[in-house]
Amino acid sequence: MQVLVDAARRKESALVAGLDPDPGRLPEEVSARHHSEDRAVYEFCRGVLEAVVDEVSAVKLQSAYFERLGPRGMEVYAGLVRDAADLGLPVIADVKRGDIGPVAAAYAEAHLAVYGAACATVSPYMGDDAVLPFLEEVRRLEAGGGVFVLVATSNPSAPAFQEATRPPVYEVAAELVRRLGGGTGDYPDAGAVVGATRPEVGRRVRELLPRALFLVPGYGAQGGDAAGVRALLDRRGGGVLVNSSRGILYAYEKSGGGYQSAARSAARDARDELRGVGARL
Amino acid sequence: MQVLVDAARRKESALVAGLDPDPGRLPEEVSARHHSEDRAVYEFCRGVLEAVVDEVSAVKLQSAYFERLGPRGMEVYAGLVRDAADLGLPVIADVKRGDIGPVAAAYAEAHLAVYGAACATVSPYMGDDAVLPFLEEVRRLEAGGGVFVLVATSNPSAPAFQEATRPPVYEVAAELVRRLGGGTGDYPDAGAVVGATRPEVGRRVRELLPRALFLVPGYGAQGGDAAGVRALLDRRGGGVLVNSSRGILYAYEKSGGGYQSAARSAARDARDELRGVGARL
Repeated sequence: MQVLVDAARRKESALVAGLDPDPGRLPEEVSARHHSEDRAVYEFCRGVLEAVVDEVSAVKLQSAYFERLGPRGMEVYAGLVRDAADLGLPVIADVKRGDIGPVAAAYAEAHLAVYGAACATVSPYMGDDAVLPFLEEVRRLEAGGGVFVLVATSNPSAPAFQEATRPPVYEVAAELVRRLGGGTGDYPDAGAVVGATRPEVGRRVRELLPRALFLVPGYGAQGGDAAGVRALLDRRGGGVLVNSSRGILYAYEKSGGGYQSAARSAARDARDELRGVGARL
Repeated sequence: MQVLVDAARRKESALVAGLDPDPGRLPEEVSARHHSEDRAVYEFCRGVLEAVVDEVSAVKLQSAYFERLGPRGMEVYAGLVRDAADLGLPVIADVKRGDIGPVAAAYAEAHLAVYGAACATVSPYMGDDAVLPFLEEVRRLEAGGGVFVLVATSNPSAPAFQEATRPPVYEVAAELVRRLGGGTGDYPDAGAVVGATRPEVGRRVRELLPRALFLVPGYGAQGGDAAGVRALLDRRGGGVLVNSSRGILYAYEKSGGGYQSAARSAARDARDELRGVGARL
């Protein structure tokens, strides 16, 4: 996790920019220059990275949008991981993989070693077997990578699954994170994905994981807001990184003007809002 | 699901061959012919497909092993999905994706439309939002595809997570499968991944899902056996497809001789064993 923590402190930003490029929503100025979807997606994402580099601590790549473009989409994914590294932005591979043993190890190697992300998101449904191989892989990274385990997500159907039992299964996932996290960094190398949309759930997860770093999706577009983030802060007012994807990528649709200046301005606003909440690392 | 059911009936086989190609375990006769790992993996997997085509109902591709080879690995994955279709073998994309809304839709489009698998495995941790986009995608497939949701898996750490609550979360997952499955085929288009290693759990899931098709991993290599499969059968003695990966792929390591004849012979033995259990569709 240390690579994220260091970047967030250097930038004084708890904001992560999420790249979820929908080929149907590319700016005209980009799509007009390319015949192939994958090249247009690459230029757009690269442009967003350059625009927001000073405002964000890290970048989160949503692998689904690159897989959807076939093998050439994975070339784009590879290129963007490299570009982000060149810009000093640590990459979170938002892959939510959840498989076991040698399969989990193959996924971890793919995204953390072959493609070169510093962090990855992982699903806990198959238990420790799904998470440990990712932790083993990040523990090989010199800069200090990390794994974010899905704990309490922000989507509408999450409560019906994650709160259907006693104790709720998000508490079982939080306990798994607490038990498996380690390392010598400022935060354990196992963190948690916790949405900003259910503050009472967020407070409970924070109780269970007082020291962990939370990756918070659902800011802006999914209904999470500053109050939701406040519920997730640790005792020092730290411990959260907040992702915004569509709010940054598609800012140009509302503001008019170039997509890069719109993205930068949206990222700056979100970063400042998070500073207002007191979120820092 | 109908495409799997039809193939299983035609072949009189409840066996699925899993392709989990570990580049460190390729037969010498294959690796000697190739400088690049991805080409060697392709030749090996293609050779296994040709060897077992008469013995198995379908093939399951474990995406992690192709992702691990970078973008060229996804070319291999694409080629094998095409080859399987040419051989009349429906493909189950074992991707265990678990994300929501437009992201889940992008994953579903990637594996079921762009790459062209007939079925996919999905994780239920994020609830209905993670599963419905996959069902919408398979409902567009003329041949009748399907989605297998992780319910009760066969790995060692599964019980500590899936049985930690009341009710156990595998029952919540089973209920999700029951609720979301539909279609006009012989089985609902939402099925369940249920391991053969915990018969009492398997029987409970069968009680909750009397009509569903189960995809059963962990046969052979992971400790599942015929007795474990028997606990999963529906009232008519049907309702299960059983996957064997390493037991088929690496049969040559034990038997000596060519990897293709070893794979064919291992697949035939497993198919016959399943017929002995009474498993049929």
